[in-house]
Amino acid sequence: MVVETRYLELDSKGENHIIDLTPRIMRELEKTKVTNGIMTVFVPGSTGAVTTLEYEPGLIRDLPSALERIAPKNIYYAHDETWHDGNGHSHVRASLIGPSLTIPFVDRKLLLGTWQQVVFLELDIRPRRRKIVLQIIGE
Amino acid sequence: MVVETRYLELDSKGENHIIDLTPRIMRELEKTKVTNGIMTVFVPGSTGAVTTLEYEPGLIRDLPSALERIAPKNIYYAHDETWHDGNGHSHVRASLIGPSLTIPFVDRKLLLGTWQQVVFLELDIRPRRRKIVLQIIGE
Amino acid sequence: MVVETRYLELDSKGENHIIDLTPRIMRELEKTKVTNGIMTVFVPGSTGAVTTLEYEPGLIRDLPSALERIAPKNIYYAHDETWHDGNGHSHVRASLIGPSLTIPFVDRKLLLGTWQQVVFLELDIRPRRRKIVLQIIGE
Repeated sequence: MVVETRYLELDSKGENHIIDLTPRIMRELEKTKVTNGIMTVFVPGSTGAVTTLEYEPGLIRDLPSALERIAPKNIYYAHDETWHDGNGHSHVRASLIGPSLTIPFVDRKLLLGTWQQVVFLELDIRPRRRKIVLQIIGE
Repeated sequence: MVVETRYLELDSKGENHIIDLTPRIMRELEKTKVTNGIMTVFVPGSTGAVTTLEYEPGLIRDLPSALERIAPKNIYYAHDETWHDGNGHSHVRASLIGPSLTIPFVDRKLLLGTWQQVVFLELDIRPRRRKIVLQIIGE
Repeated sequence: MVVETRYLELDSKGENHIIDLTPRIMRELEKTKVTNGIMTVFVPGSTGAVTTLEYEPGLIRDLPSALERIAPKNIYYAHDETWHDGNGHSHVRASLIGPSLTIPFVDRKLLLGTWQQVVFLELDIRPRRRKIVLQIIGE
C-alpha cells in the first residue's frame, strides 16, 4: 500500500474557464506504481472547484449559467466589505461545488464513464496560476 | 491494508428517480475482510449523482424541486446544439451535486447518521441501467 | 499504512451557523503517526454539511444567502407532511452541498490554500450537538 502525491500546474484564463484535467490525470496515474485504489483531486484555494462533466462546447457554457442563477455576479456580497475585490460570488460558487473529488481506479485506469471528464472550474474573476493536488492511495 | 472493488447494478425508472443504496452498500461491506477504512461510492457517467438524504417520501420530491430551480428543464441549453438530446439540465445538475461520495466505516459499519441514507439520483431523462462503483480501502 | 478514526464534538448555535474546523482538524492530524495520506471529514446526519470557505465575516453571511435562493425557507416542502418539523429546506441544502470532504496531507500538513478553511455548516433550524468523523488513511 502506497501514497503518491503529484501536482498539476494550470494557467486559467479567468472567470468560468473550465479545464479538462482527464488526460493529464491519466498520465500521472500511469507513471505511478499503484494498480488499484483511489485518487483525490484537490484544489488548494477558495475560488476554484473540481467536478465531472461531459466536456463539450455546450456544457462549458451551460454550467456557468447555472452558477449565475445560484450566485449572481451583480448582487450584493458582504465579502466585498472585507476585501473589496468583487469576487464574493466566486467564493460562494466554489463552496457549493467543492474543492475535492475522489475517483476509484482499477488496473491503473480511472473508472470514469465514457462521456465523463474531470474538470477544474476557475471561478475567480481573473486569470490564475493553479496547482492541483493528486493524492493517490492504493496497492 | 487492502483495496476491494465492488459494483452495484441498478435499473433507474427515469428522471428524478432517487434510489436508496444503503442496504446494498452495507451488504457489500459485510462481505469484505476490511474492518476500518473508507468507501468511495462513485457514479461512472455524467447524468447521475450520489449524495446522502433522509430517504422518505417527502424529500425525494423536494430535492428534484430544488434542482428544477437551479437548472430548469425548459430553458435553453447550449448542450442541445451538440447532441439534440434534451438533457442539458441533467448534465448541469449532475455536475453540481457530483458523482463521488466517501464514507468512513469502523468495525465494518458505515458511520452514517440514523436518518441518513446514501442515495443515487437519476438525473437523465430516460430509464438507465447504472453500474455504481464501491471502492473500499482499509485494514 | 494505517487507518485512524478521530471525532470532533461541536455545539452549533442553530441555522446557518458556520464553524471553522481547521484548527481542531490540524491538531488531530498532528496527534497521529500518519505522515502522508488523506483525511475524510464526514458529517453523520442529514441536516449538516461540510465544505471549504475563506472564513471571514462576509462570506459566512453570503453562503446562507445563496442557499436561501436554492432552497428557500418559506416555500412548501413535502417533507413537512412526513414529520411536520419545518426543516425540509435544511435537508435539501445538506444534500446539495454534501456531508463528506476528502483532503490530502503531506508531512502531516493539510494541503489547503492560504485562505481556505474547512467548515461545518449547521443547516438545521435549531442548535444541535454534532459529532464529526475524521477518517485518516496513510503511511
